[in-house]
Amino acid sequence: MQERIEIALKEALAGTAARGAPPKLSAALQHAVFPGGARVRPQLALAVAAACGDDCPALSDAAAIAIELMHCASLVHDDLPCFDDADLRRGKPTVHKAFSEPLALLAGDALIILAFETLTRGAATRPERAGPLVLGLAAATGMPGGICAGQGWESEAEVDLAAYHMAKTGALFVAATALGAAAAGADPEPWHELGARIGAAFQVADDLRDALLTEAELGKPAGQDDAHMRPSAVRELGIEGAVKQLHDILGGAISSIPSCPGEAALAKIVSAQAQRLTPVQFRHAAV
Amino acid sequence: MQERIEIALKEALAGTAARGAPPKLSAALQHAVFPGGARVRPQLALAVAAACGDDCPALSDAAAIAIELMHCASLVHDDLPCFDDADLRRGKPTVHKAFSEPLALLAGDALIILAFETLTRGAATRPERAGPLVLGLAAATGMPGGICAGQGWESEAEVDLAAYHMAKTGALFVAATALGAAAAGADPEPWHELGARIGAAFQVADDLRDALLTEAELGKPAGQDDAHMRPSAVRELGIEGAVKQLHDILGGAISSIPSCPGEAALAKIVSAQAQRLTPVQFRHAAV
Repeated sequence: MQERIEIALKEALAGTAARGAPPKLSAALQHAVFPGGARVRPQLALAVAAACGDDCPALSDAAAIAIELMHCASLVHDDLPCFDDADLRRGKPTVHKAFSEPLALLAGDALIILAFETLTRGAATRPERAGPLVLGLAAATGMPGGICAGQGWESEAEVDLAAYHMAKTGALFVAATALGAAAAGADPEPWHELGARIGAAFQVADDLRDALLTEAELGKPAGQDDAHMRPSAVRELGIEGAVKQLHDILGGAISSIPSCPGEAALAKIVSAQAQRLTPVQFRHAAV
Repeated sequence: MQERIEIALKEALAGTAARGAPPKLSAALQHAVFPGGARVRPQLALAVAAACGDDCPALSDAAAIAIELMHCASLVHDDLPCFDDADLRRGKPTVHKAFSEPLALLAGDALIILAFETLTRGAATRPERAGPLVLGLAAATGMPGGICAGQGWESEAEVDLAAYHMAKTGALFVAATALGAAAAGADPEPWHELGARIGAAFQVADDLRDALLTEAELGKPAGQDDAHMRPSAVRELGIEGAVKQLHDILGGAISSIPSCPGEAALAKIVSAQAQRLTPVQFRHAAV
């Protein structure tokens, strides 16, 4: 599955580096996408597509890749000086550090556009599936409830922590399960809960890692939530409270998997992710 | 036509300000889109759609609006400190001056996403037209040859002026004519030349205005091409040479209009635009 994702990403990026493209911006796009992190979202999308029969693998790949491209775009923009001002990402310089602020801004924009382009190309043989996929991706990333909205809440004086996390992190996980199902011709709606639960767990785990790990362990600056006074499960509930919340959320994730041919295989994948999300010192109590 | 554009833009923006959206980012989106400039691109798209029969007005509106939203997004990002560092746009503070840099960055991202969402919603009753429209918009805005590519060339030491202008400005005009035709069910390809010619004329006219007008006349800072050492027709050819180039380009635009029911009406619209583009002191020699 990992290989399928990397191949599809390479193909999508190859189109942006065609003859006539500005070379530095092409290189910035490569830097933003390769090598990747855990590719959790596209793996989840492919796992759900597989659980639903994966009758159009090219479209499943496109859906998975579109979600990862959006994730990469949000990281590039989130690392910029006016947000996190981060020097490191995935253990190497952030895009604006390696290239420049203008090229990082443009790289993020180009990746957002490439996500919609990739999704639409993937639906060439199934045009009736393109509309719901594009709208699902837009809902997960734009306004009023996607990643942009989530980051927008960081500029507000009063923030509902659940709504903030749902928009900034959860929405793209919901898109991963929903688009995975829709790419395989299944109804996406029953898959929203699984995506929302994994997304919420992922956000709490991220807050825990930010508080518990060092910059070297994270491959990016640590302690950013405290440094930027950002809402965080750890800041709200403390370490122990956040670990308990993580377990509570994951407890329901597996039981929320809709009945489908690949249900058992998907449950295994989610269990493995849950284990991976839990900080090592708390794993004895993991789901 | 102007009213149709404003109504469709208001409807598209209304969806982003739904309950649960972060209020400041919602306000930043409104600020970025209203009041608009001349709305030249969506007018061109609607004029071409009308010339091709406009058999699905909701989709023509969506195509026109998607192009304008992309244009607004590119202005918001282009005004940021790492690019033009502009304080004024359309006679009022730029988005990052009125709100903040993070909100301006997010507003641009959200507008790009909204453009694809709007286009896809508009194609609800004509799903077979959605694919070519989305791909046309992506080609005009992303890599390797859209607006992002055009701005990316500003980070390169060696630049082909024609390729730079085509990507940064021309591509969205090509999209305006091509998407206008495609929205009405016509073949977009014969419409590319008209869009390219109008876009090239618009860029030269923009270079002339930047060199000839004051900040008060422009509603934004003047002399930016010289200040940022940007490639420009005036910097390359001088004022007289740029005016001659503008006339040469427009000379062929009208004759490039494909044969269609609304050909004569469209020719009138293009002539009026050509007159408007020419600096007032050179209009005696206009097309």
